[in-house]
Amino acid sequence: MRRKEFEMDSQINQEECSGFLKEMSFGFLGTVDPDGMPCITPLNFVFHNGSLYFHGSRIGEKMTNLRKQAGVTFAVAKEYAIIPSYFSDPLMACPATSYFKSVRIDGQAVAVDDPHEKAEVLEALMRKLQPEGGYKTIDAGDADYIPRLKGVAIVRIDASRMVGKFKFGQNLKSSKRESLTKGLENRGLPQDTETIELMRRFCPHSIGD
Amino acid sequence: MRRKEFEMDSQINQEECSGFLKEMSFGFLGTVDPDGMPCITPLNFVFHNGSLYFHGSRIGEKMTNLRKQAGVTFAVAKEYAIIPSYFSDPLMACPATSYFKSVRIDGQAVAVDDPHEKAEVLEALMRKLQPEGGYKTIDAGDADYIPRLKGVAIVRIDASRMVGKFKFGQNLKSSKRESLTKGLENRGLPQDTETIELMRRFCPHSIGD
Repeated sequence: MRRKEFEMDSQINQEECSGFLKEMSFGFLGTVDPDGMPCITPLNFVFHNGSLYFHGSRIGEKMTNLRKQAGVTFAVAKEYAIIPSYFSDPLMACPATSYFKSVRIDGQAVAVDDPHEKAEVLEALMRKLQPEGGYKTIDAGDADYIPRLKGVAIVRIDASRMVGKFKFGQNLKSSKRESLTKGLENRGLPQDTETIELMRRFCPHSIGD
Repeated sequence: MRRKEFEMDSQINQEECSGFLKEMSFGFLGTVDPDGMPCITPLNFVFHNGSLYFHGSRIGEKMTNLRKQAGVTFAVAKEYAIIPSYFSDPLMACPATSYFKSVRIDGQAVAVDDPHEKAEVLEALMRKLQPEGGYKTIDAGDADYIPRLKGVAIVRIDASRMVGKFKFGQNLKSSKRESLTKGLENRGLPQDTETIELMRRFCPHSIGD
């Protein structure tokens, strides 16, 4: 059950989710092992042409799990601010929380065998993580890359569901939101200004007291 | 199959894992839903007295999953540096990688019902995330906290396995490690100095060329 705090316009959601996935360099792949136990693997990834891709060794726990069960999940999250209780309550610890963005994709993992799709995906991953260049473009026809492309496993997640949870005090009444904003302004940690902007962006309407 | 790069002395591992869990504010809980599909939930957590704890609403997807299957996993990861290919190879993209710490705990999720353990865990979570104080100590006998403690769900993961993967170029030959260290020194991003220290700390012996 999703709390009201997290509900978002579904159209904004999709765009915001994609944007966030493009900003973030790594995420967490969730698989189920042959005994039915959950596994999580942190991975660099690229969100390319509407699909999420990652690469890895052809052997290893995650590939074994994927062959047994293709149903996977992938989560990406960033914590923007830890909100101390005293920003809104001088006594009780309960209002302490954190503001974050997270996106979760559920889908089917598909092994990519086509060398052209492999090259395109790895090139997209390089452009994301090494945008300054400094390497020879990855091309399926390049003799230097052909054996490397053959040796690497690429997995595409064909998404059936993508859900964003962006928590920036959407449920706060105006007075509490003002207290929090002031608290963040005064604290001035590196991400606090961005957090205030995100609070404004995702909570355009004050709920009133 | 764990790659050689990641292997660590098991005694160091346990201490380093605990230290890392104490530094990090949030992680990813992996559960299996009633249909056997993997689920991931990002959560704040505290590693307290050798167990990992998190709190949440009594209702919701993760609690439903935990009641059906108590076997869970919890992953925490931090990326320290994206290592561009050109730090060690002027042509090929292949050496591009990232250096990170990750810790994964597998275990059984147990609902904590004892109000004293609940209070102790929430107090430990507060001390971790709000070390500056500014709230009334959480106490199971405090009339203000009693109803709040009753309303919150606390879960303890009784760990059967804790594995750390700290990737800081442990497998590199001396010449490549020197190139990477120089690359990081010249780049000078905020975490690059710490990454160099971690490369030295976890790779005390040069492997030779």
